[in-house]
Amino acid sequence: MQFDIFSLFPEIFEPYIKISILNRAIEKGLVQVALHNIRDWTTDKHHVTDDTPYGGGGGMVMKPEPIFAAVEDIMGKTSQYPIVLLTPQGRVFDQRIAQEFASYERIGLICGRYEGVDERVREHLVTDEISIGDYVLTGGELPTLIMMDAISRILPGVLGDPTGASDDSHASGLLEYPHYTRPAEFRDWGVPEVLISGNHAHINLWRRQQSLLRTSKKRPDLLESASLDKADLKFLAALEQEDSIPEQNHETDQ
Amino acid sequence: MQFDIFSLFPEIFEPYIKISILNRAIEKGLVQVALHNIRDWTTDKHHVTDDTPYGGGGGMVMKPEPIFAAVEDIMGKTSQYPIVLLTPQGRVFDQRIAQEFASYERIGLICGRYEGVDERVREHLVTDEISIGDYVLTGGELPTLIMMDAISRILPGVLGDPTGASDDSHASGLLEYPHYTRPAEFRDWGVPEVLISGNHAHINLWRRQQSLLRTSKKRPDLLESASLDKADLKFLAALEQEDSIPEQNHETDQ
Repeated sequence: MQFDIFSLFPEIFEPYIKISILNRAIEKGLVQVALHNIRDWTTDKHHVTDDTPYGGGGGMVMKPEPIFAAVEDIMGKTSQYPIVLLTPQGRVFDQRIAQEFASYERIGLICGRYEGVDERVREHLVTDEISIGDYVLTGGELPTLIMMDAISRILPGVLGDPTGASDDSHASGLLEYPHYTRPAEFRDWGVPEVLISGNHAHINLWRRQQSLLRTSKKRPDLLESASLDKADLKFLAALEQEDSIPEQNHETDQ
Repeated sequence: MQFDIFSLFPEIFEPYIKISILNRAIEKGLVQVALHNIRDWTTDKHHVTDDTPYGGGGGMVMKPEPIFAAVEDIMGKTSQYPIVLLTPQGRVFDQRIAQEFASYERIGLICGRYEGVDERVREHLVTDEISIGDYVLTGGELPTLIMMDAISRILPGVLGDPTGASDDSHASGLLEYPHYTRPAEFRDWGVPEVLISGNHAHINLWRRQQSLLRTSKKRPDLLESASLDKADLKFLAALEQEDSIPEQNHETDQ
């Protein structure tokens, strides 16, 4: 899969690409990252990429010409691939959208500065708009890295462990169960007995129930779209009936 | 404001800190970033920071000892400042939470690898858990950069333009109105007449209504918590009555 990134600050990407899961994916030949500096498509002497907004007000707006020129030059005039603008107005990115993008061979990602990109880019150039969350950022560079990280992890062969990605929080639609590693006793805090029992059926049941418990407590909104089986639903129904028992008992009772 | 970052990959942060709004904030003395490599607090010969999970399964879990040692050493044993774990289980970060953190002098940010941090860190060390969105990432480093960017922008004096931050999408609780800059005519696509009218009352009204229009169309969930005045509510009520008119007319009618 190839990510074509259009940014005024391509140097932001280098170190992350060299360190993370992305590096492994690139070395395995599963991911390519092509960095394009929008400034290289300016045609004026001063390489201007932004200008004051029509109608007044603070901040600068990214000009349409160099963005159109860069994207059309690299991706073609009628791209068969998604051309994504990172913008607070976009669809809110989640694991399902990451899955959706993971099925493409190539994606173009345009990093706007969040003060504003000329509206004509949104209307006539991009095929999709993505927001990574309801907060204000300086530009689309970090959101682009977030998208690349989330999408790359899903691609077959990128994670060494074939079950690694599917167990993570959100991958299953639920929050993840608690993790413990050595030491078995740290200060006065031990590891739940079931995890050192060696009984894998019990361990799996405990983990599933902990996932359900956490999700219902912290993010009940996620339960609506999670895939749950009969046993899950029964457990959740029992939880609801126990509502009068203080919360803490739920976790330590297991 | 000081950000204390605890990570296994502190080198990820350097380039972003040097380029973005964070650089400006640091140079003005408004923000300090202290990078701490968790590995420096290991005490064994091989500097081991992770281990296999109790109960089996894929992936590695970050050990509790070096994290506790690092955080307590730097932030004190009983920190008066927030100690935040970046984790998919956390409260979902938004502009309101960014505002909340912006009021502290100092924050500790622990970058877990998302495969898992020993549960005892969550239970006994951190004071808060934050997720930046419902997707699976390799680690807490990008989320930490996201938080630092969003929080720094809010600090008084960081943005050159005093109105810059408050106009942005999400800062007002609404999506932002469309931006246009030169050229007035690009290909066949012009700029809305009102923006070149010079009538600032009309411009302000148009922009407000565009914000309301977009938010109601793309993210109606945001309207519930946005602060709206009488004129806003009247406009939204009128919009609802026009529901039978095709969507596109709304935007070009203005």
